[in-house]
Amino acid sequence: MSIKRITIIGLGNIGSSVALAVSNNDAADVEVSGYARNEETGREAVRLGVVQRFCDNLAEAVFDADLVVLVTPVAAMENLMRQINPHLAPGAVVADVGSTKVDVNKWGKEIIGPEATFIGGHPMAGSAASGIAGANGDMFRDTVFCVVPERDTSPAACAALEQLVQWIGARPIQMSAQQHDQYVASVSHLPMVLASMLVTSATSHQDWDVMSQLAALGFREMTRMAAGSAEVRRSICSTNKQAIADSIDRFVSTLQDYRQHILQDDEELLALFRDAGAARRRWLETRYPR
Amino acid sequence: MSIKRITIIGLGNIGSSVALAVSNNDAADVEVSGYARNEETGREAVRLGVVQRFCDNLAEAVFDADLVVLVTPVAAMENLMRQINPHLAPGAVVADVGSTKVDVNKWGKEIIGPEATFIGGHPMAGSAASGIAGANGDMFRDTVFCVVPERDTSPAACAALEQLVQWIGARPIQMSAQQHDQYVASVSHLPMVLASMLVTSATSHQDWDVMSQLAALGFREMTRMAAGSAEVRRSICSTNKQAIADSIDRFVSTLQDYRQHILQDDEELLALFRDAGAARRRWLETRYPR
Repeated sequence: MSIKRITIIGLGNIGSSVALAVSNNDAADVEVSGYARNEETGREAVRLGVVQRFCDNLAEAVFDADLVVLVTPVAAMENLMRQINPHLAPGAVVADVGSTKVDVNKWGKEIIGPEATFIGGHPMAGSAASGIAGANGDMFRDTVFCVVPERDTSPAACAALEQLVQWIGARPIQMSAQQHDQYVASVSHLPMVLASMLVTSATSHQDWDVMSQLAALGFREMTRMAAGSAEVRRSICSTNKQAIADSIDRFVSTLQDYRQHILQDDEELLALFRDAGAARRRWLETRYPR
Repeated sequence: MSIKRITIIGLGNIGSSVALAVSNNDAADVEVSGYARNEETGREAVRLGVVQRFCDNLAEAVFDADLVVLVTPVAAMENLMRQINPHLAPGAVVADVGSTKVDVNKWGKEIIGPEATFIGGHPMAGSAASGIAGANGDMFRDTVFCVVPERDTSPAACAALEQLVQWIGARPIQMSAQQHDQYVASVSHLPMVLASMLVTSATSHQDWDVMSQLAALGFREMTRMAAGSAEVRRSICSTNKQAIADSIDRFVSTLQDYRQHILQDDEELLALFRDAGAARRRWLETRYPR
């Protein structure tokens, strides 16, 4: 299948960065159009060269697209799929870039089709910038993009998403939805909730008024992710409950192991710190070379 | 007591920043001298205007000082106190800037005296820079400096340390050693060990090879403190075992609370995230205004 028209649904920071990355790629001979609820955002997207065309109507935005990419919070996806499915072109592929995949893939399987096909995706990149003004066409360069088919997803749908991944400069990795959600629970969602937990635990101490004056850069860094939208955090948790709970259980067991060695003040504690430092160094060198 | 001569023992990044802050303060009519094991460091300190005088001999470095400040890892303090005590001037005050206070104060009480007096201190500031080349005379400006006397510490010793605190532009807060160690366990040591725990927990997962490719900026930020010296981390833990274990227990209880609300996906989870975000915002506004 040759992709001639891509529609990006949702022109926030991630959506407009995907659109811009494709638009900037001369090798991608494709028309990029966009849909945003806010018409002003759509005009801005055309003005900035993020998309070539803007539609303020979902049916019109998707009817001639070969590839439709959903870039909205996970909580909005199910309803969005129901709205677009009747208007999709025969053979169209619908992909998403949501943070969790088991629920999203289930909705995709139930709702999208029979003429069109759904395939889940998740780019492992992000930015502190926000909105279309912060769109970055290089956001995905050399990053990993999870391609998450179900057992019966057609090879054509995988190929369409992998084409997009290539156009935005990322590297596709295929895995199952269950694997994906378990992995991101450990490396992304657990760190995110730990930041909030650390704030809750410290600020509920009876002497927080004094303690708060001693909290400094380490506390600031380890709680930064507690800032930002509580709703986004909650919606990530609500679509990945069990995997996050499992990663919490794994973490508690590590924590109890450290606790014991801290109280014993033994050589094993030094080994734990050393091994953790070395493992992080290896990860950094592989993940962020140069 | 009027301080005419200060000696800083240990001219690493913190020690040289303390020295530079005093040297830069015209209101401080005081001679600042320094001791470092490495003679080259001492020469560099004089050259950079960090200290006015450098001694490569501990006895000579302290014999005429009104205030001696120990700026070495906590693990080195006990031995250092034994080495300097016979050479201290009558009425001299010895202070430290170590990360934990119960053990350090105990050593100070046992070892320093009867002619000189020990008082514990801990500046709540730091830097990613290292060594004397990264010395920053503004490091302590508007930060909090814990002044940690024992019940029978003389007011003169408190006053001497508070004079230093004022000279370097910081704000003194008095508390007991037990309070100090409990507070820093929660806001400083727990965040530090959590970073290592997160690396240990993630990298011990059987699928870490794949997961590691999905770990991105959140994981990077939440594990940054796992880098750096394992020995320093271990020595902090070994002088604050019980308080860190207690703060781990408090944290596990918060973590189980979140876990339950994540599985129930209830409104309380949203409230936890919201409250944590708001509490951090209030802390930031107070702690780092403007």
